[in-house]
Formats: sequence, structure tokens, C-alpha cells
Amino acid sequence: MKAEKISEFTTHRLSIYLRCLAALDEEGVETISSKSLAERFNLNSAQIRKDLAYFGQFGVRGVGYPVRDLRRRISNILGLDSLHKVCVIGGGNLGMALAEYGGFLQHGFSVVAVFENSPAKIGTTWRNGVPVVSIGDLKETVRARGIEMAMIAVPAAAAREVCERVFDAGIRAILNFAPVRVVPRPGTKIQSIDLSISLEGLSFFLAGRATGTR
Amino acid sequence: MKAEKISEFTTHRLSIYLRCLAALDEEGVETISSKSLAERFNLNSAQIRKDLAYFGQFGVRGVGYPVRDLRRRISNILGLDSLHKVCVIGGGNLGMALAEYGGFLQHGFSVVAVFENSPAKIGTTWRNGVPVVSIGDLKETVRARGIEMAMIAVPAAAAREVCERVFDAGIRAILNFAPVRVVPRPGTKIQSIDLSISLEGLSFFLAGRATGTR
Repeated sequence: MKAEKISEFTTHRLSIYLRCLAALDEEGVETISSKSLAERFNLNSAQIRKDLAYFGQFGVRGVGYPVRDLRRRISNILGLDSLHKVCVIGGGNLGMALAEYGGFLQHGFSVVAVFENSPAKIGTTWRNGVPVVSIGDLKETVRARGIEMAMIAVPAAAAREVCERVFDAGIRAILNFAPVRVVPRPGTKIQSIDLSISLEGLSFFLAGRATGTR
Repeated sequence: MKAEKISEFTTHRLSIYLRCLAALDEEGVETISSKSLAERFNLNSAQIRKDLAYFGQFGVRGVGYPVRDLRRRISNILGLDSLHKVCVIGGGNLGMALAEYGGFLQHGFSVVAVFENSPAKIGTTWRNGVPVVSIGDLKETVRARGIEMAMIAVPAAAAREVCERVFDAGIRAILNFAPVRVVPRPGTKIQSIDLSISLEGLSFFLAGRATGTR
């Protein structure tokens, strides 16, 4: 396995394949060729074969990939065999939206705490039962609850300092929603969500340079 | 220009190049080679050359790309020469977070209205001045304000019906945050944000199969 060569674009595509395979599995489909998978979900069959080849030999020539088995393998590759505990830093609108986002739990991520510095919010419980905890208790809460990842939903001006505190607390993986570039420490990873990029994809479409509807 | 072959992954990378070029431009860098661009921002130089070749001949062999010119050209390709008016459907935590997200305006997207069905919210104004408007007034507001895009921030169960109303109102581009698959109409585009996918990239990293810190 050439793990060090796996780009974020590849893992992103693996996540997409995983969703497609889950849909097929739930429909009762047992095997599928890269060609059918590509046609059904608007993907690229050569890319599918190339991506999966990184991780070993899947599928049988002329028959296709075993849907459930491949689903399990990709899930395993992505480290999704067990539930991941996640926290949110910042209890504003975005933080609270993340705390109750329905998509996380269905994919194996459980939001177990929101960290805040506002005394008015600390000690309260969000409507789906997530506690709002003082940012001062970050380190001990992370340790006690086994939190592995943090989603940063603080204003841009506070994001860098908050990321340092998160690393100090022993968290190695950050999803950053603040519109500011934060540099990871060695051995850690920061993935930034730039919501404008998705709008730019739509802008490209509206500018008339793209056709089709996918 | 082979426009019909441009994938979402390509436009996504163009957006990333645009951000890198903006940073270089602000530093006063005038030309950069694909190799330096790749090294500086952790990108792939062959991919850069391939992506840009889709849109014509940029850069001078042995010299590099003219930073400001390339920045302008990519901005033009992505349809970012003028401001785009955007609305949010759903005035819950996520909708309000989107209405005040600082990153949009700096990239040329202005949120001009939030549409709601709750009488308690309709007629109010959000703290950054965005009005909360009845979903019943969607069509006329879209026409009057020249709204081109909608961000869907309603519960999953309501998302499909809301998208139909958005299309009926004449909007052709949707950014969907609801964790549900919505099918576009011909001539329209729906881009779905699946926040779990970013967490899966972090999970992959924590599972120890990826190295490095980018």
C-alpha cells in the first residue's frame, strides 16, 4: 500500500464510492463493475479502478466488485470501523448547527461536547443533549471523553489561537470552518472547509461553461 | 475549450489555485512556475499544467505563469467577475450561520435574503442586515433582487420539496446542506455539501494510513 501517496482528493472519492456502495447494498445489488458504478453515479470508471488499486486487489475481471465486501473494505480503509468522538469549538449559530447536524452520526461521528467561553452558555445542554462546556475544561474533557477530532466554529480572528489550544489538549485532527488559514503541527492534520469554493463551482456552471446536470 | 469535460474536481482545484494566486499577488510575486506553485502550496505540478491547459495557453515555458493575469483569467473562467446574489432557505442555526459567514462576500457572493416559514422570524432582520422573508414570497423576491443561487438549510425531510420551489422560482443553482440526495432538473445544478466526508478524511489520517501534515 502506497499510503503516503494518497491525496485528499483520493480519500474524498473513497467517501463518495462508500456512499454509492451503501446505496447499492441497501438495494440488494451484490456485484457491480467499475463501468456500471461510474454510469449509475456519474463517476469515472478509470478513476475508480485506479483509486481502488492503491489499496490492493478488489473485484474479479469480467464480474465486478463484490458490493458489500468492497463497502466494508473502504470503510475499514477510512478508519470508520468504530465510532469517532468529535467536539465543536464555538457555540454560535454555526457551532450549534454542527452539534445537531444529522449527517454526522449516520456516518459514524458523534458530537459529544461544544466548548464555549461565554458564561451564559457554559453548563447548558443543547436540544439534542450535547453539553456546552467551558473551553477552560478542554484538556480534561478531551481526555475523559476520548475526543479525537475538533470542529472549529469560532470567528476568524480567534481561530489560530483556538487551534493551538486544541492541539495542546491532545487532539490531532481538526476540521476548520473559520475562513482563515491555520498551519498544522507535525503529526496533526487540519482540513479547512471553504464554503465559497462550492459556490464558485455553481458560479462556473451559471457562467455557461459547464453543461449537464450532475 | 473542452468545457463539457470539466469535472467538479477540476473547478474545485481552480478555486484552490485562485486562492494561492491571490496570496502570491498580495505578496507582490509577479511570475511563478507550476513547480514553485506546487511546492509552495502542496499541490501537484503536472495536475496544475493539465488543469490550466483545458482553458488555453497560459504561462511561458521556462518563465512561469504571470500571477496577476492568471488570477484574473481563472476568476473569469469561474464566472467571478461580478458579485453573485445568493439566498438562504431556512432560518435555523445553520441558515443564520450561512447568512453571516464572512468568507462569502470576500469571494464575491452576497447573501441578500433568508427565507423562512416561521411567522415569528418573518419580517425580522438578521444582525448583519439580511432580511428574513416569507418563503411564500420566494418567487417575487428572487426576481426583484436578482438572486441566482440558493443555499438549502432546511431539515432533510423538507429539502426535496424546498428545492422544487427554488427551481420554480427560477433559480438554477443550489448548494444543498441537507443530508439527503436531491435530483436536479435539466439545466440546473445542485451541489451537495456532505460535511461527513471531511471528517472521513480526518478519520483516514488518524487511522494511520496517511502521513504528513497538509
